[in-house]
Amino acid sequence: MNIITTEKLTDFKHLNLFNIKYQDRAGNPKSWIFASRSETPDVTLNTTNSVDVSINKTVNKMPHAVVVVPFHMNYQKLVLIREFRVVLGDYQYGFPAGLVDKGEQIEETAERELKEETGLELVSFIRTSPIIYSSSGMTDESIALVYANCSGEPSLEWNEDSEDIEVLMISSEEAQKLLETPEIKFDVKTWIVLSIFARTGKI
Amino acid sequence: MNIITTEKLTDFKHLNLFNIKYQDRAGNPKSWIFASRSETPDVTLNTTNSVDVSINKTVNKMPHAVVVVPFHMNYQKLVLIREFRVVLGDYQYGFPAGLVDKGEQIEETAERELKEETGLELVSFIRTSPIIYSSSGMTDESIALVYANCSGEPSLEWNEDSEDIEVLMISSEEAQKLLETPEIKFDVKTWIVLSIFARTGKI
Repeated sequence: MNIITTEKLTDFKHLNLFNIKYQDRAGNPKSWIFASRSETPDVTLNTTNSVDVSINKTVNKMPHAVVVVPFHMNYQKLVLIREFRVVLGDYQYGFPAGLVDKGEQIEETAERELKEETGLELVSFIRTSPIIYSSSGMTDESIALVYANCSGEPSLEWNEDSEDIEVLMISSEEAQKLLETPEIKFDVKTWIVLSIFARTGKI
Repeated sequence: MNIITTEKLTDFKHLNLFNIKYQDRAGNPKSWIFASRSETPDVTLNTTNSVDVSINKTVNKMPHAVVVVPFHMNYQKLVLIREFRVVLGDYQYGFPAGLVDKGEQIEETAERELKEETGLELVSFIRTSPIIYSSSGMTDESIALVYANCSGEPSLEWNEDSEDIEVLMISSEEAQKLLETPEIKFDVKTWIVLSIFARTGKI
């Protein structure tokens, strides 16, 4: 495969479409449209005409967003949020998450978003994924997944007006009940982690 | 929260941007741009001006895509693919996956995509997720995750020219080694499943 050019198709503030022209394995010219939050998605650095790949390839070392899998140390429960997602026009069960602010480290984003969305305090990190990709057929969106121990009492005091959130703390038995509720919309990551937690009691 | 209108912003074949106008909790007018593969994303059915919500809400019962987590019964190994992702301009480790064809059931898509991308035969279904959402901050993309037993020998005979795929079959020890390789780009779902498989030997 050979990436030829990447063209920005729209000019919105937070999300845009890009078109990649490339050659497939048989040398046929092809194109692929994707969505990105970046002004210059990483793939632009891999184009045939890229001037200095050796420098450019090292530029983007941060994910777009951080997703926290919070485990409450005192209650020994997994923390979830039930959040209104504008894009779905409905509530979704997910984990606290948010975009990485400029200059922020992954651990800082995790701590900040956990506090803002649940009121809980991040106590210690269990494990952190590398930069991983949400759905690379249609977007270059990348996240880091941070498993962390937390403490404190849930509070919505730090929510913004644009956020409509309920905090849940659940045992593995309660996870199983949620998974068996057909009306609930789940985020992909949350469904996978919950289904493991329901079966093993572990995250 | 109150969804007011949804407007289609672009007119491409496979992926488009939409703008949702809504009121936040405090009644402030807000907007949110997202990417969708649908001509009429589900959220359009939740607008204040929607004519007949009772009918419309039942329309979209299929996910956009199916992702298969294949476990090889004879080798007792998890099956992965290393695939060139145009959007990343690089190879990514993931699971076989693809869009649901018109009229297809989830189980049929799983069987077809597993065969096309790995040459393996789907033998039995272990469990199937409900419709779950990839990253609902930026897209309405939905998938079903199908855990399945498979058999046969890996083959790239059914790959299309636009596909550049290598099939891997791994033990939990080999999963751990992949997870410790910093150069590898992982899909989100794959990283979560792999990290559980590496620790417990289970999927």
